[in-house]
Amino acid sequence: MSDQGEEAASAQWGPPYLLYLGSANDDLAIKTARGLAYWRPHWCLGQHRRDDCAVTLDLPDMDIVRAKAAGASTMVIGVANAGGVMNDAMIADAIAALDAGLHVVSGLHQKLRDQPEIVEAARRNGRALFDARAPRPGIPVGTGARRLGRRLLTVGTDCSVGKMYTALALEQSLRRRGLPADFRATGQTGILIAGAGIPVDAVIADFISGAAESISPARADDGWDLIEGQGSLFHPSYAGVSLGLLHGSQPDALVLCHEPTRRHMRGLRDYPIPELMACMEANLAAARLTNPAVKPVGIALNTSRLPAQEAIATCERVSALFGLPCLDPVTMGVESIADNLVACFAD
Amino acid sequence: MSDQGEEAASAQWGPPYLLYLGSANDDLAIKTARGLAYWRPHWCLGQHRRDDCAVTLDLPDMDIVRAKAAGASTMVIGVANAGGVMNDAMIADAIAALDAGLHVVSGLHQKLRDQPEIVEAARRNGRALFDARAPRPGIPVGTGARRLGRRLLTVGTDCSVGKMYTALALEQSLRRRGLPADFRATGQTGILIAGAGIPVDAVIADFISGAAESISPARADDGWDLIEGQGSLFHPSYAGVSLGLLHGSQPDALVLCHEPTRRHMRGLRDYPIPELMACMEANLAAARLTNPAVKPVGIALNTSRLPAQEAIATCERVSALFGLPCLDPVTMGVESIADNLVACFAD
Repeated sequence: MSDQGEEAASAQWGPPYLLYLGSANDDLAIKTARGLAYWRPHWCLGQHRRDDCAVTLDLPDMDIVRAKAAGASTMVIGVANAGGVMNDAMIADAIAALDAGLHVVSGLHQKLRDQPEIVEAARRNGRALFDARAPRPGIPVGTGARRLGRRLLTVGTDCSVGKMYTALALEQSLRRRGLPADFRATGQTGILIAGAGIPVDAVIADFISGAAESISPARADDGWDLIEGQGSLFHPSYAGVSLGLLHGSQPDALVLCHEPTRRHMRGLRDYPIPELMACMEANLAAARLTNPAVKPVGIALNTSRLPAQEAIATCERVSALFGLPCLDPVTMGVESIADNLVACFAD
Repeated sequence: MSDQGEEAASAQWGPPYLLYLGSANDDLAIKTARGLAYWRPHWCLGQHRRDDCAVTLDLPDMDIVRAKAAGASTMVIGVANAGGVMNDAMIADAIAALDAGLHVVSGLHQKLRDQPEIVEAARRNGRALFDARAPRPGIPVGTGARRLGRRLLTVGTDCSVGKMYTALALEQSLRRRGLPADFRATGQTGILIAGAGIPVDAVIADFISGAAESISPARADDGWDLIEGQGSLFHPSYAGVSLGLLHGSQPDALVLCHEPTRRHMRGLRDYPIPELMACMEANLAAARLTNPAVKPVGIALNTSRLPAQEAIATCERVSALFGLPCLDPVTMGVESIADNLVACFAD
């Protein structure tokens, strides 16, 4: 977990974290901070909220000085404004954190490294800056060369259907079984949770599969890489990202993620959600290019918009259709998918 | 045809061209210049070769001063060194061209705009710089929204199998028939030939399909956009680019390009060339997401490594297999594919 920018190459960012919520006024705006607090609670000392902040993560409220005194190493700007830009208050708070001796990392579109006052404050304090949405330099072109290790990729019928959550839940489940398992992050929230990764939607197009190869290198410990999928092969805006990620991941196993009440692709009223079986088949067909032995091991549904009974019935219906475990990772856990994964790949 | 960089926004580059070959010592190095001389001979006044240049385009040799006096507007650096970098001689020649009053455009990986002396020379002379491998800023995310016009995309079993040549040959054939037709460029050589376009492999991954939508906007004149394909859905390094380009193009028609003697994907010995029918089917299936009515209209083979009789026999065999015209655009022309295209879309 280290700064990969040029401006403080020797300084290390990492937990314990102060989560900066700023002036956020709805839950969507603090999605990144919430993900970190949910998946890495032991890393999160407290939250920093301005007076007009309307949301909370139920962490201790701390200002920068108190967080530093309590042992915080890094302030995480885990809030999204409209357009992902930094306002003046946020810039001032980032500088104050650096001056107090904290590293600063951000999941915003607008980069810390593009704010000269922030870059200067990091330099004068010898602190690290890290932009989770900025790919590191030097990502290679994908080679398709077969590599050791076992990899699972979460794929989806659409964007925002639970691909990150499912991969993280599987990491947790496998680790609890004593199996080596590592979540591999491909988006800014996942990168802050993992402390590493590449935002694949932000790399240059020729390097998508190379980015996927980089984040899930060969491993020889019989463990699993749980790779966070992005987008959908059926999303006309982003399918290229999904395909390059699929090829570079060389997945041994796929989990298909889906939101059963959604009627059209995110942001595109004219594009219906693909049929589940067709979506699984298309992902398997594409994945076979780099791993002919790829297997589907489960389906993860986001049933948050369904009554509980209907959620269970939907999972049972999909499970019967595919002959695979189907569940909602949030309300039902992922144990049956993890069971099936382990069973499918028992040597 | 205008400069899209920031450093000379009002200056216009364009023909007549002086093609700069520098110290090139093999034909592959001058691929870009050769494409321009072949497809736009009336734009090319002459060639500029250094004393150690070992190749020729059979254009009049001209130094910069003579080219300017003969009416040249722009010097095109149409040569590729190892790594695409600019050596000192090339930088000096670019500056000399700017000082003589020529605009300078380049197809090199290394950018003109990243050479401070070149940027300064352009500024002091009020001349334009254009890097054909640098996407313009502000490319939008693809929307998948249906747009007017007719579009043909060339797709391929692999990289470097004739996708640009085929699209340009179809433009020429349709124009000779009096039909409105425009080649739409997606790579640096094509961009210099067209005088416009976006290098889709160099855009940020989230914007691949948006780039394709941008270069082939709605048209209402019953004409055709002939879009230059890139890579292959079966190339594990670059398939994401190919898929995004396919979705953004919303092609009405596909032409599949192939090199029948190639045994494995370019640069990847472990990946065999896909079977022709499977490749066509995969491209059609993916294209249907944004244009359910897409049709295959022909197959273009690069038969340069086959004896003439075998080339003809191969085309006949593939034609019978698909029930579509199949030909080598270089040795046989593309008239039968153009005939089929016009027939398939006669209203």
